[in-house]
Amino acid sequence: MADKTLYLDDLKVGDRFASEGHEIDAEQIKAFAKLFDPQLFHTDEEAAKNSFFGGLAASGWHTAAITMRLLVTSGLPLADGIIGAGGQLSWPHPTRPGDVLRVETEVMEIVPSRSRPDRGMVTMRCETRNQRGEVLQHFLPKLVVMRRPQGGARVD
Amino acid sequence: MADKTLYLDDLKVGDRFASEGHEIDAEQIKAFAKLFDPQLFHTDEEAAKNSFFGGLAASGWHTAAITMRLLVTSGLPLADGIIGAGGQLSWPHPTRPGDVLRVETEVMEIVPSRSRPDRGMVTMRCETRNQRGEVLQHFLPKLVVMRRPQGGARVD
Repeated sequence: MADKTLYLDDLKVGDRFASEGHEIDAEQIKAFAKLFDPQLFHTDEEAAKNSFFGGLAASGWHTAAITMRLLVTSGLPLADGIIGAGGQLSWPHPTRPGDVLRVETEVMEIVPSRSRPDRGMVTMRCETRNQRGEVLQHFLPKLVVMRRPQGGARVD
Repeated sequence: MADKTLYLDDLKVGDRFASEGHEIDAEQIKAFAKLFDPQLFHTDEEAAKNSFFGGLAASGWHTAAITMRLLVTSGLPLADGIIGAGGQLSWPHPTRPGDVLRVETEVMEIVPSRSRPDRGMVTMRCETRNQRGEVLQHFLPKLVVMRRPQGGARVD
């Protein structure tokens, strides 16, 4: 796990980060879908063959949840955590059993808060790709990022 | 569970749907977060008190996943399933233990496909609210919705 050392003061537009990988399999896909997205193209390999997806595919929300885990555990070392307000989300390709997901992020915009000088809003570009480079998820979140506390020292 | 009877042919702009309710508790919040968003404000009540959220809050992705489950099981009876391409997502209020989530959806736009006459793209407005009417999630998904198969009859 990366040291979580970065405050708003440390970020600049164009900074990039990369997560470790996570391999998804059919069991994970079906377990998540049974809880949160119980549709046959996410829960049943045979039924999925005749569906829109032409085979078992992960729920987009499963791809999103794995992306978040990768950001938290290795992809985006923000000192006060990853606090998202939302953003534009899309799933250009389905996530399939055997895919290895990795997330690349880039800082697109930094807007210090006028009313709350201890924080700012940072727009990131987050792309989740599989081992073939296919984009499984594209997300442009706005994150609340805190400034370094007064008197604090950078730990790195 | 609502009968899943609706094809593209059956939808019109302004149609509205409402899901049943789902009550979330601290155990659900912590269990989801341990798997997908392991940050202290989602996993530890005590630590959460001194965080941005001022108390335990669900991961936004957990709110999104519960919203999807509610849509699939009761909120949006599309005959061929709920197939999302993405959309604009935001979390205006945190989801807290004890919140009862319900989802209201409204058809905003219907665009038949020019190249594939068996389907269209439907933009929905999906609002997830708690029992106090606070908006926990606002989502404007674009869904792929299929037309009724030729020769098929409406089942209702």
